[in-house]
Amino acid sequence: MINLNAITGNKMKRILVCLMAVILPLFGMIAQEKKTLTLEDLIPGGETFYKYYPENIYGLGWCGDVCIKPDIDTLFAINPVNGKENAILLREDLNSALEKIGLEKVASLYGVEFVYGNIDEVRLLRKGNVCKYNLKTKEAVVLSKYEETAQNIDFAPNSNNLAYTKGSSLYIVSVDESGNIKNGEVVSDKDGIVYGQVVHRNEFGISKGTFWSPDASKIAFYKMDESMVTEYPLVDIDARIAKEAPIRYPMAGMTSHKVYVGVYDVNTRNVVYLKTADPTDRYFTNISWSPDSKKIYVIELNRDQNHSQLIRYDALTGEQEAIVIEERHEKYVEPQNPITFVPGNDNKFIYQSQRDGYNHLYLYDIDGSFKQLTSGKWLVNEILGFDAKGSTLFYMSTENSPLDACLYKVNIKNGKREMVTKESGWHKVSLSGTGKYIVDSYSSKDVPRVIDIERTDGKGKVINLLTSKNPYEGIDMPTVEHGTIKAADDTTDLYYLLVKPFDFDPSKKYPVVIYVYGGPHAQLVTNTWRGGASGWDSYMAQNGYIVFTLDNRGSANRGLEFENCTFRNLGIEECKDQMKGVEFLKSLPYVDQNRIGVHGWSYGGHMTTALMLRHNDVFKVGVAGGPVIDWALYEVMYGERYMDTPQDNPEGYEATNLNNLAENLKGKLMIIHDYNDKTCVPQHTLQFMKTCIEKRVYPDLFIYPGHDHNVLGRDRVHLHHKISTYFFENL
Amino acid sequence: MINLNAITGNKMKRILVCLMAVILPLFGMIAQEKKTLTLEDLIPGGETFYKYYPENIYGLGWCGDVCIKPDIDTLFAINPVNGKENAILLREDLNSALEKIGLEKVASLYGVEFVYGNIDEVRLLRKGNVCKYNLKTKEAVVLSKYEETAQNIDFAPNSNNLAYTKGSSLYIVSVDESGNIKNGEVVSDKDGIVYGQVVHRNEFGISKGTFWSPDASKIAFYKMDESMVTEYPLVDIDARIAKEAPIRYPMAGMTSHKVYVGVYDVNTRNVVYLKTADPTDRYFTNISWSPDSKKIYVIELNRDQNHSQLIRYDALTGEQEAIVIEERHEKYVEPQNPITFVPGNDNKFIYQSQRDGYNHLYLYDIDGSFKQLTSGKWLVNEILGFDAKGSTLFYMSTENSPLDACLYKVNIKNGKREMVTKESGWHKVSLSGTGKYIVDSYSSKDVPRVIDIERTDGKGKVINLLTSKNPYEGIDMPTVEHGTIKAADDTTDLYYLLVKPFDFDPSKKYPVVIYVYGGPHAQLVTNTWRGGASGWDSYMAQNGYIVFTLDNRGSANRGLEFENCTFRNLGIEECKDQMKGVEFLKSLPYVDQNRIGVHGWSYGGHMTTALMLRHNDVFKVGVAGGPVIDWALYEVMYGERYMDTPQDNPEGYEATNLNNLAENLKGKLMIIHDYNDKTCVPQHTLQFMKTCIEKRVYPDLFIYPGHDHNVLGRDRVHLHHKISTYFFENL
Repeated sequence: MINLNAITGNKMKRILVCLMAVILPLFGMIAQEKKTLTLEDLIPGGETFYKYYPENIYGLGWCGDVCIKPDIDTLFAINPVNGKENAILLREDLNSALEKIGLEKVASLYGVEFVYGNIDEVRLLRKGNVCKYNLKTKEAVVLSKYEETAQNIDFAPNSNNLAYTKGSSLYIVSVDESGNIKNGEVVSDKDGIVYGQVVHRNEFGISKGTFWSPDASKIAFYKMDESMVTEYPLVDIDARIAKEAPIRYPMAGMTSHKVYVGVYDVNTRNVVYLKTADPTDRYFTNISWSPDSKKIYVIELNRDQNHSQLIRYDALTGEQEAIVIEERHEKYVEPQNPITFVPGNDNKFIYQSQRDGYNHLYLYDIDGSFKQLTSGKWLVNEILGFDAKGSTLFYMSTENSPLDACLYKVNIKNGKREMVTKESGWHKVSLSGTGKYIVDSYSSKDVPRVIDIERTDGKGKVINLLTSKNPYEGIDMPTVEHGTIKAADDTTDLYYLLVKPFDFDPSKKYPVVIYVYGGPHAQLVTNTWRGGASGWDSYMAQNGYIVFTLDNRGSANRGLEFENCTFRNLGIEECKDQMKGVEFLKSLPYVDQNRIGVHGWSYGGHMTTALMLRHNDVFKVGVAGGPVIDWALYEVMYGERYMDTPQDNPEGYEATNLNNLAENLKGKLMIIHDYNDKTCVPQHTLQFMKTCIEKRVYPDLFIYPGHDHNVLGRDRVHLHHKISTYFFENL
Repeated sequence: MINLNAITGNKMKRILVCLMAVILPLFGMIAQEKKTLTLEDLIPGGETFYKYYPENIYGLGWCGDVCIKPDIDTLFAINPVNGKENAILLREDLNSALEKIGLEKVASLYGVEFVYGNIDEVRLLRKGNVCKYNLKTKEAVVLSKYEETAQNIDFAPNSNNLAYTKGSSLYIVSVDESGNIKNGEVVSDKDGIVYGQVVHRNEFGISKGTFWSPDASKIAFYKMDESMVTEYPLVDIDARIAKEAPIRYPMAGMTSHKVYVGVYDVNTRNVVYLKTADPTDRYFTNISWSPDSKKIYVIELNRDQNHSQLIRYDALTGEQEAIVIEERHEKYVEPQNPITFVPGNDNKFIYQSQRDGYNHLYLYDIDGSFKQLTSGKWLVNEILGFDAKGSTLFYMSTENSPLDACLYKVNIKNGKREMVTKESGWHKVSLSGTGKYIVDSYSSKDVPRVIDIERTDGKGKVINLLTSKNPYEGIDMPTVEHGTIKAADDTTDLYYLLVKPFDFDPSKKYPVVIYVYGGPHAQLVTNTWRGGASGWDSYMAQNGYIVFTLDNRGSANRGLEFENCTFRNLGIEECKDQMKGVEFLKSLPYVDQNRIGVHGWSYGGHMTTALMLRHNDVFKVGVAGGPVIDWALYEVMYGERYMDTPQDNPEGYEATNLNNLAENLKGKLMIIHDYNDKTCVPQHTLQFMKTCIEKRVYPDLFIYPGHDHNVLGRDRVHLHHKISTYFFENL
């Protein structure tokens, strides 16, 4: 369950980068000075939003230890030692070469990839053609082909072998040393069986359905049989007569899909399936290959999600070889990261686990012996990679602060670790080929964005590529503050974000809107530009509201216990923590205690509705977007992890089903649901409306036809006008 | 397209009677005195609504010339000459007899039927059993059986032969003179083929799918093949996982269903289909039998609905015998009434036609010769029947006033006609067996309800069975006024209803809500109790609003030209007339010109939305329920009659498609749609929302899950709270 307003830092960055790549094809326009901003300025999708987004450099990367900086017409190589930029590729040259072999020109150089291990050759895709272009000879050749309607294109590492999906089938294209193309396929012959795509609804860190072996000779892929899963009847209203657009949606406690892992051999064109345990009610996650391309490692999990096993299979025969690691937890274990082998050592790999209460790194031998590499009351967010020797491992962690994401390195022999990035803040780092350099793009509460090239040994000159000016210069922006309060357990520190009007006057009384998410995998209060405050937060503050956000227990990046205290009763502890936030707000002399509102989407929609109903004397106005109303209507993978099944936990489902609280509604509550919401299906809101009608209470409702879980694109401005107006009129 | 707030008088009565029969099993509770009423008091479905409904006597009817008055425990026979009441049936006697033969007791005597032509025998249905009970011998016998889940049960006249449907199939049960039961069936073996049910979506006066011959030997039935009709994907949200509940819904201009007329012979058990013209794009309406049970008459209509033919078929062979009557009209002809044979004369029948501009009676010979029986600038609403000799025909008409429904009789020999009921008002009449007496139940603007027995020759004593007291006695009820203004053509009189607060002060300024329907087949301003004002009208007036209703051109009971001036451009002329109403309102010194709102449902939802968009400087607030937004999304039969097809009339569809006006929205507009609306599918509102989102305008929305076209039952109070609050908060 993710949504734009409430996602973990890395995901948020990825989404924003994608968004920017679309709306900012021509960067560099200068923000006009004005006193206040409109929703068009502040909301992603707004016509003038781009003007207020911190400056950036898109597409920075590495070819070995040379930093690559693409642009529309020119691609530069940057020397990381002295920062010297060389134009190494011109668009006109590339386009001449493409034209010569009858291919479509490129509109920019952002799409070229240095995948051949040298700076002279790049790969690019032109409508079904995989091309190699030589920067020296200025010649392009077509190496292989794929269908134009291909989806999920996945290239083998250092190879032109690729796989893609079309419909429910998987296609594999391999190129031998002589350049001969061989086509293979795994065709779906039954409705509800899908090959080569994401399974388990993107949970357990799953983001793709194909996994090439390091030597490009084999590809592991997911097969999902969801023919036994009940279809949820979404509807497409754009057809001449509205038509069904059903999705297979296994609801908590109900029959779920079955997943298999196949291995396709590009030479023999044979498929072998891993001989796993019965796939009924079993999850197959975090697939990885051994460095020699002979073994496959899968982290398998029972449906109850309280027992995981890292299992090694023989990739040729599909036979199970060993259960390398097992983990159990009375609540749940949640494998989210595949293992990473140590370069140059086929027997050692890095494994991530929350077993000591925080996500930490473990150096394992394939025989199951291990040593813990990191520990402490902080967690590892992400592994970036090794240095060339395989002795130093780079990773992002919260060690500096739960609100930060900083780069660290650890020596896997002696466990010595060191912070690499120097500034407190949220770093996004790209490691060079040898691990000697990084491109470090970071922001913090008061820093819009800085991009530097640095050495990972801390020596040498820092080369500054960009220091964004404040995009709000000259504008009377609301202020943002961070702080902590105690959770409802009176022990745990919770971080909050307080956004105040620019002309804040402590002798006045202000209405407050609490913006909430509150669910796992998300953190809203971060040491990023403006402290995590969204454009909408600023808009509301501009209009005289204080906006308050508190990351309650259950949210991300604070460790396992912080998260799993909500187990089997989602929303209950979270509401208690939010009420501590209300207590804090009420202690502030400038807060108008009679004008407190709340808004959130998805999990935050649940929280909003729950707060409105459980504390109807506190909250005057709420706007809940795409809310979970009844966890029994949510999907199996995410829902059962935290709630178990309705059969196993009837009390929990009963206590958290907001239909049971509907009659408490006193304030103004608007529920917004997307008509084509595939994540949190419209049945939640529709059943809640029905209950409210029966109970003679009066929520308001709005529907966004054609939109999925949250309103993105241009319509997002409409959405925020709708939300804002509701607060203006009622709070 | 009908809805509770806007239906023709007779339909309204039928619906209200049904409603009352459910919510008023024990009549006679006394209204408590209070100063103002709540929605529970004023809205059908409200807990205390029954207290304010005029007193009534339910189930009055005739057995020959004896008036029958059932009650819970006792059934009375009333002598129509002197009004003397005799208890002729006691519930305890009936129940003893039923118990004796092992059948379930009755809870009241409302269900017994005098169908055997004598006062000593009655029929009643007990869970699959057809029983005859003898009032003299006090014995009950089972005559025949049907399945308990049977629907559309239809008895042959003066016979125990019956037909019913189950699923899509038709079942026929016949009983011969020896009492032997013979079962027959016409079974549907394909999804989308339906036997024995209503066809053509209840248009053309069609209200059933089976038609017994007078001698009970044969039954004509509809077969509808709608397998080629696109399904509209409605959704049932009450299932564990929401599931599809699709309906076959042919939209304007698209492929429609095909209808056939079969004749089942109970003796031979054979089915013969009438050899009609190709049923593609053809309507088969108003089926009737010749008195000798040998011929079947059908009024057939082309898809363009501008050419009707009364065709006679041989019931045994299915062969077409003659086209007896043909009608054409450049706009449309709309047959709504089957022919009625003159008693004792197998060659003469009454035919109704609007051919001279008003619905009038014609006496036809089966050879096609005719004479017009009635004429004038008024219309016949309904034929009631003949006297015993077959010389006098009784009918309801608007001759006395377009706001009245009065009983008339006409001598079919000399054409002399006479008004039978004496009072101006809205009469509901039940004719005795010989036509000598009537039960006359009527109301008028100031008369809640009177029920009399009268002689149809105007002589003798009027026997008053009931004179309802004013149910609002002691309550400060809003006042109701009728009046006329000129239509936008500056010629036609339009009737209006003005509802004013009880404490109306002409020196003050009042906000106005216009309640509108505006479409064909409906009349809102009638000479019925409180002049047609609804409970909601009164509620709004009680809260300080003036409520205004105007029956614009296009509405019912004013003749063909009055109705068909809207042809091919539904909503345009109607809006012009409503704006004449606004002009009139603005001329009233006590109307606040800046506070005018509008509300309507279905066609009235279209009108509301159209007025809000076409006159956005006039209307501040609107609430549109189940609106038609785009006539291309409406069904074939009703829609194409008035609009032709989108292919034939692209300009008309374009001009009346409210999506094209969405960007004009300035005021507050709430659209309410039923999630399971089978008449006006939710696509209308959802597409409109999508357009509004694109155009950056901001309607409000509410959805009633599980409800069909309009919100009935207990939830109707919730609906009117929602509507009223919207006006209170915004107007």
